[in-house]
Amino acid sequence: MAKLEEKEISKKIIFEGRLLKVRVDTVKLQSGVEATREVVEHPGAVAVIAITQDDELVLVRQFRQPAGEVLIEIPAGVPEKNEAGEAAARRELEEETGYYAKNIKKVWAGYSSPGYSSEVIQFFLATDMNLMKQHPDEDEFVEVELVDIDACLDLLKTGQINDNKTMIGILIADLARKGEL
Amino acid sequence: MAKLEEKEISKKIIFEGRLLKVRVDTVKLQSGVEATREVVEHPGAVAVIAITQDDELVLVRQFRQPAGEVLIEIPAGVPEKNEAGEAAARRELEEETGYYAKNIKKVWAGYSSPGYSSEVIQFFLATDMNLMKQHPDEDEFVEVELVDIDACLDLLKTGQINDNKTMIGILIADLARKGEL
Repeated sequence: MAKLEEKEISKKIIFEGRLLKVRVDTVKLQSGVEATREVVEHPGAVAVIAITQDDELVLVRQFRQPAGEVLIEIPAGVPEKNEAGEAAARRELEEETGYYAKNIKKVWAGYSSPGYSSEVIQFFLATDMNLMKQHPDEDEFVEVELVDIDACLDLLKTGQINDNKTMIGILIADLARKGEL
Repeated sequence: MAKLEEKEISKKIIFEGRLLKVRVDTVKLQSGVEATREVVEHPGAVAVIAITQDDELVLVRQFRQPAGEVLIEIPAGVPEKNEAGEAAARRELEEETGYYAKNIKKVWAGYSSPGYSSEVIQFFLATDMNLMKQHPDEDEFVEVELVDIDACLDLLKTGQINDNKTMIGILIADLARKGEL
């Protein structure tokens, strides 16, 4: 076994939900000791850094049950079965905000919390947009807000934005407008 | 009920592990329709953006069972019971990397994935460090690497780093050295 790797002894599925699976895995460490790992299996997500012609970022406000509060976030969601990341990003952007992006490209992908979850978020940069009509999922209520990128940086600094993917989205938007991406 | 909020009808605990709790909540939406939300309760985490006198970021490589691979990350971990965030950040940095930070301050906090998890990661900036001795937990095997901040940005661009908190750590380190934080 390669250095740093852990040998899997067993996987026990505890819960199979609509979105999540939860497992408790037993692994053998390099030292020979056995340890357990609590793992959430998540199908992965897409997030959209959507920038208007006026250098505004498209943000959404929505209530998040796990947080127990309304958060300001970049548009995001989970791809449908067999749906490619780019198609999912276009769809989520349009459903949640009403914007159709003529130009969309993947700029990055990262684990949201690899200590316990398999979720990878794919980040897309969307530009050259037309405003169509918002049509969120029937179990989703979102408010759309256009915020200048400098004002977004202020929202980060004053603690009004506290979502990691949105932090990444704002910093990427800032790099993109400076041509540093 | 305030606009955007959901009314909680019931909470059902599915799993109580060492680290995680998993619930299925039933909520009533503004439309009156009921929906279920799968929620992971996580106690929260700390992550440390540790910068050496030579403008190098302290990174760790470790195997992550949920990812099934070795990832490059900033040092991070879960506070012990009743441990404050700053103390936890100091402890995790020292255990995983051997660095003791004379100067440490909280710079930000954000949800890692608020669509399904309550986890908030507190980010600390650590400077003015002394190298002591690494002493990780007995179920933790980590390799320490010091990487120049410019080289970190290259690792992001070439997809060799794919962890969201580490993305945030690198971008904050870059802002900090430019005096823009």
